[in-house]
Amino acid sequence: MHTILLLGGGKSATYLIDYLADQAPIKKRKLILADLDLLALQKKLVGKPNTEAVLLDAQDEEQLTALIERADVVISMLPAFLHPKIAKKALALKKHFFSASYESEEMKQMKGDIEQSGLLFLNECGLDPGIDHMSAMKIIHEAKGAGEEILSFKSFCGGLLSPENEDNPWKYKFTWNPRNVVLAGQGTSRYIEQGKLKFVPYHKLFKRLDTFQFEEIGNFEGYPNRDSLSYRSVYGLEKIPTMRRGTLRREGYCKAWDIFVQLGMTEDTYEVNLPEDFTLRDFLNTFLPYHPSDPVEEKLTEMFSDLDFPTFEKIQWLGFFSKDLVPLTKGTPAQILQRILEKHWTLAPEDKDMIVMRHVFEIKTPQGMKIVNSSLVCKGQDSVYTAMAKTVGLPLAIAVDQFLDGNIQARGLHIPVIPEIYIPILNSLAESGISFSETEEVLASS
Amino acid sequence: MHTILLLGGGKSATYLIDYLADQAPIKKRKLILADLDLLALQKKLVGKPNTEAVLLDAQDEEQLTALIERADVVISMLPAFLHPKIAKKALALKKHFFSASYESEEMKQMKGDIEQSGLLFLNECGLDPGIDHMSAMKIIHEAKGAGEEILSFKSFCGGLLSPENEDNPWKYKFTWNPRNVVLAGQGTSRYIEQGKLKFVPYHKLFKRLDTFQFEEIGNFEGYPNRDSLSYRSVYGLEKIPTMRRGTLRREGYCKAWDIFVQLGMTEDTYEVNLPEDFTLRDFLNTFLPYHPSDPVEEKLTEMFSDLDFPTFEKIQWLGFFSKDLVPLTKGTPAQILQRILEKHWTLAPEDKDMIVMRHVFEIKTPQGMKIVNSSLVCKGQDSVYTAMAKTVGLPLAIAVDQFLDGNIQARGLHIPVIPEIYIPILNSLAESGISFSETEEVLASS
Repeated sequence: MHTILLLGGGKSATYLIDYLADQAPIKKRKLILADLDLLALQKKLVGKPNTEAVLLDAQDEEQLTALIERADVVISMLPAFLHPKIAKKALALKKHFFSASYESEEMKQMKGDIEQSGLLFLNECGLDPGIDHMSAMKIIHEAKGAGEEILSFKSFCGGLLSPENEDNPWKYKFTWNPRNVVLAGQGTSRYIEQGKLKFVPYHKLFKRLDTFQFEEIGNFEGYPNRDSLSYRSVYGLEKIPTMRRGTLRREGYCKAWDIFVQLGMTEDTYEVNLPEDFTLRDFLNTFLPYHPSDPVEEKLTEMFSDLDFPTFEKIQWLGFFSKDLVPLTKGTPAQILQRILEKHWTLAPEDKDMIVMRHVFEIKTPQGMKIVNSSLVCKGQDSVYTAMAKTVGLPLAIAVDQFLDGNIQARGLHIPVIPEIYIPILNSLAESGISFSETEEVLASS
Repeated sequence: MHTILLLGGGKSATYLIDYLADQAPIKKRKLILADLDLLALQKKLVGKPNTEAVLLDAQDEEQLTALIERADVVISMLPAFLHPKIAKKALALKKHFFSASYESEEMKQMKGDIEQSGLLFLNECGLDPGIDHMSAMKIIHEAKGAGEEILSFKSFCGGLLSPENEDNPWKYKFTWNPRNVVLAGQGTSRYIEQGKLKFVPYHKLFKRLDTFQFEEIGNFEGYPNRDSLSYRSVYGLEKIPTMRRGTLRREGYCKAWDIFVQLGMTEDTYEVNLPEDFTLRDFLNTFLPYHPSDPVEEKLTEMFSDLDFPTFEKIQWLGFFSKDLVPLTKGTPAQILQRILEKHWTLAPEDKDMIVMRHVFEIKTPQGMKIVNSSLVCKGQDSVYTAMAKTVGLPLAIAVDQFLDGNIQARGLHIPVIPEIYIPILNSLAESGISFSETEEVLASS
């Protein structure tokens, strides 16, 4: 009987827990869930045989060691900074390790030892990173296998609202860590276009947009994300002339968000101490130049000459022209902005979220240029059974399931970019309703 | 016989060394100079009695201790990060300590011990910080003494070229640490205007300008610098409605520099690895959006709709439209930009630099509003005897001289904001040709 230890059972683990718990009696496995919130775990496991909930203190090294000792496979959904510690323990105790987080430098340094141990350590097996790798590699390997040349690859993903719940001017609510949304894009984004390196500083990022059309759910726009250049070697596309990864938002979101960026309201590098009677209007004014008489609305319009009504409306809807008090007076501008947004962008219990992913390939074939569009649209059921939790949790659950079933024979340190790993996972995801629809268009060579 | 130990004898110590060395035989003092470059020191001390040059290894704790033990007063011109270590040794060995650097947090934590020891630790006694504090505090104390109320205080300073050597379109060359010039303004600048807090992010900084007129040397513009808010308590102006500190440049400099900021070319947070045959033109293009046919000149004009000829000329003069190779292919954009600028902005041996400082006060008096303009203009002799070295080094030299003569009785941890310290120093600076000219204008109350 195999034992799976899942560390961390928060919001994004809903589907992961259900899948593994439901499989446990069928596959004759034991599932141990360990989290800080024992009550919540116990609720999730009511009536599920072969499962056990444990109160976890991640600082308690002995408990952690004892838990890992009981397992064959360790899955970590804890905050990413804890992963190296857990992975090291897993390695020492000869247990396989799975996560949905980026393969860190510390993890890479363990590569040799992991290989020698004959274990599988699989990271980046969630949504993004995760499903993006797997779905893209399938197309890349197919094209390469057919002797075709990939000239351009754009890959964009967004965690958004299901269209029927887009009930505010931003068409957005937090479906993921709010702090990460507020700080998104800080640093410089890098990509390559037609062989030309492109570096985009944060304050220009939300103006450098791609537009993507979807038949049933409408248009999205995307801004470039982090270092796309580094993915060339991950995907075996070292010489690709055009490659860009990015984040999707509804049309108009980026233009309005850019107002906050331009004002400096997303800065997280210094702390301010505002008067207790500071209003949202005062807060906005603090980022605008002084004028003896002009109201903030006028100064904002003056500063942003292309400020249109849809943009103005988004700022107004958040209360920035009102005399409501700021919800936080001591903190970084980004922390204060986050608190303001949380008042308006929190999912209602019945709200459905939506994950949208789009790959666009331009592939040179003997018949001419081929444009491949591959799209994933996944809608949540409500604010607990979210598309985010489903698309992050299921790939991980399936990876562990397929691995314990013997369908994944790979060992060593991996991310899911090899067919042996991604094919069984993609097949199984499709059975759970997570599948890409592809369109292909061949432009006859002239 | 008093012994002065001067640690660090680099470019900015020229005047400091000369002043202390010339005083040594007159005042019956001994001057020990310790630096990494023994030959250079020895040259500076040729024919100067009562002086000694020592080869310094700042890592050699024993040598440092032995040197400090021999001294009554320690002056540190070493990099600022070394000051806490040196100050701690000076305190332990009961020696007075002087520097031109900012009073660090570590230094502040030593305050109680310094006071108990009966020693004087004087920091921020150079130009900026230093002369700015002293000259401003004189006016502030005079106004307060007369029962007047200061409503506004703007203080700007710049290290520039003497007008006769402004032989390039930027009217600028490096007269100070080039890296600091390239990174200047990063982070958020904060000030207060008419009682309103104002936060300016880096990417808006070089647009938020004040203009200052000088009779004989023409106009300058200044951008806000760091955290002006924190100076309210330093200067005893806690309730002042308007206070802003900033950096002066020639008119047009900021608009052109802002092009680099907007492009992201001053970013220091990530390293790039450019092809060996990368040209300055390629480098510029990397920060511009892709276009299948538009040349970089056109894309730049497209991106900056208000790009005028004087701005274009400045970029062109640095070679950014040329096919010259970049002087560095591996480094942060800021490091690469610095290397490009160093090819063009290095002082020629005969070039004269110039320090410009301007305080503008608005003071409420019984007779009406009084505008006080206080200005310092100091020109260098050549690229060795610079105005920068003079205005940084002389205040420190004079402070030590006045202290050893018994004209400064203050003890404890200080910056030069109390009359007992700044009055003798300002008087002596005036004798060395560093003095402010003041104009006063009273606007009759209506």
